[in-house]
Amino acid sequence: MATVRAIDVRGGAGPASPLSINDSVLKPQPKPSECLVKVKAFGLNRADTLQREGRYPVPPGITNIMGSEFSGVVEEVGSDTAAAGGEDYRVGDEVFGLTYGGAYAEYVAVSKKMLLRKPAELSWQDCAAVPEVWMTALQAIHLVGEYTPSKVKSILWHAGASSVSIAGIQLSLNLASAPLKVYATTRQDAKCDFVTKQIGAHAAFNTTKSHPAADGSVGGTWADEVKRVNGGEGVDLVMDFVGAPYFAANLAVLAKDGRVVQLGVMGGTILPAGVYISSFVMKRASFVGCTLKSRDAEYQGELRDLFAETVVPKLVMGDYRCSVEKVLSWRKIEKAHGMLEGNFTMGKVVCWVD
Amino acid sequence: MATVRAIDVRGGAGPASPLSINDSVLKPQPKPSECLVKVKAFGLNRADTLQREGRYPVPPGITNIMGSEFSGVVEEVGSDTAAAGGEDYRVGDEVFGLTYGGAYAEYVAVSKKMLLRKPAELSWQDCAAVPEVWMTALQAIHLVGEYTPSKVKSILWHAGASSVSIAGIQLSLNLASAPLKVYATTRQDAKCDFVTKQIGAHAAFNTTKSHPAADGSVGGTWADEVKRVNGGEGVDLVMDFVGAPYFAANLAVLAKDGRVVQLGVMGGTILPAGVYISSFVMKRASFVGCTLKSRDAEYQGELRDLFAETVVPKLVMGDYRCSVEKVLSWRKIEKAHGMLEGNFTMGKVVCWVD
Repeated sequence: MATVRAIDVRGGAGPASPLSINDSVLKPQPKPSECLVKVKAFGLNRADTLQREGRYPVPPGITNIMGSEFSGVVEEVGSDTAAAGGEDYRVGDEVFGLTYGGAYAEYVAVSKKMLLRKPAELSWQDCAAVPEVWMTALQAIHLVGEYTPSKVKSILWHAGASSVSIAGIQLSLNLASAPLKVYATTRQDAKCDFVTKQIGAHAAFNTTKSHPAADGSVGGTWADEVKRVNGGEGVDLVMDFVGAPYFAANLAVLAKDGRVVQLGVMGGTILPAGVYISSFVMKRASFVGCTLKSRDAEYQGELRDLFAETVVPKLVMGDYRCSVEKVLSWRKIEKAHGMLEGNFTMGKVVCWVD
Repeated sequence: MATVRAIDVRGGAGPASPLSINDSVLKPQPKPSECLVKVKAFGLNRADTLQREGRYPVPPGITNIMGSEFSGVVEEVGSDTAAAGGEDYRVGDEVFGLTYGGAYAEYVAVSKKMLLRKPAELSWQDCAAVPEVWMTALQAIHLVGEYTPSKVKSILWHAGASSVSIAGIQLSLNLASAPLKVYATTRQDAKCDFVTKQIGAHAAFNTTKSHPAADGSVGGTWADEVKRVNGGEGVDLVMDFVGAPYFAANLAVLAKDGRVVQLGVMGGTILPAGVYISSFVMKRASFVGCTLKSRDAEYQGELRDLFAETVVPKLVMGDYRCSVEKVLSWRKIEKAHGMLEGNFTMGKVVCWVD
């Protein structure tokens, strides 16, 4: 059988396992509902680093090869024409999209429903950088956050300079319900400047600093400061990737009927002692977990359509920015993962398959 | 102005404040959208004891008098006939219903929308005992739990012998999606027997006992035992009144996409150290607070209609049981509150206004 190249975790998944290109991986065979795509570029995501470390179990039936978003050229079209949802993909078509895995490779087999046509105005690397991030942000706002204009007057994006939050802040600013207030937190003043001045958040808060408490004394948290800036009101929708270190303050910063969308627990999974949970009842607060990768094809397809209709045209027009920060050859995949893990980036890291 | 009798907290709200009948309270004046009802009986709720202790702040515009459910006779009808939603209430009509407050009294002014006609088959005390409990259980299952037959295969009711859970277990057993599994926990073997043999729960678990852990060793929790009985699967919908002591085990017992409806925090509001929250992401778990009293009139009206259509006919037919455990004169209000606080009851406590 034909062999091709793909990124491999040498010695199996583990915290220190090195990454390299394996040049004898079996070429994927597309199912009738899939296309085989020759990959031009793929985007990196935090879930990839977890998977490399063995902390992201791959579901049965999914390739062990990392990578959930890509751009490339259709090389082979599965026989099921109905699977594409009205699209008629042909060999040579330029596409991009989301996949359950396998994008760190020369070839990836992808459900036709998850493909999109690459607009001529967007580069290969831009297209590889947008699917995961924007669909995650759309999911957090609409499907999990259950955004409704009459109820949501303020949204807070933690990790404001992360790619999902950069997308999410832009989406939030474009929601119909003016005057929606859009806030962010980061852990660096430079990132706070970036998300307010470059992305347009109304205010950003450095969570490593202490803030005045509600009574004016020192030693308050970012939650006190957010409420102060928000006219004394809590926030309706909080998007969190950090987890345990922010859990108590997230409950504190919520408005009545507020919701925390828990997109990750990157900062820790074990709560400190003394977290006060009466807000669940007093404020009718809710915490709702949000993941994209583990969702079924129908759910992901709904997001793909929302993305195609509401985001892609604005990316093409330049109304939304892609925020690719760094493009490297896939030969430098270890360096690329290191950039993600170091939290140095304020945008996406993309690898070019050469 | 006319004065009437109502239960008063002497010396203002506080943990040890005594209750007694005050015979010179101003008679309520019904608004055009309200009826004035001469109260025959009122039901007691845990929120009343919190209010007496000063731990349940009364919203602006609501009477300080306790009591959120009652039965009685219409004494005066407000002039706004459209407010009753098609009903044409007249002086002398026998009614029951839910109110934001004021039912611990000879007279209560109630929104016409929250009234129901008292069926002849049900007693005054039964009618005074059912509104809060059944509307709370309906809200937990449908509006907050977002029950859908295709997704929910199992429901767990904590505090299984509490009035809300007794109603909730009966409602759960009547949901369309057989074979829905209905479980309960209590803290006494006698209550476990009661909820399985008298109410019909498929299994009940005493949370004060240790259970075998997943690996067969001793020292497991009720969550391990629930999963074992449920064929190794987690539970889709958990109804909790206990709060902090059950928080970690509630997360552990949930199935993927499972939801905890947090109806109360009676067992404590401060989490112990070491609660592990990765399930929010790994299972896409959600915790959602649920209160009835603080909801607006439109929301309560929706529940009132659901209650009238789906519950009242079954109460009349005897398919659902009211579970009134004790009826006392309102002169014994202090004893009645003591019964609630002692957790001795397996059903409602109702006071007769004589």
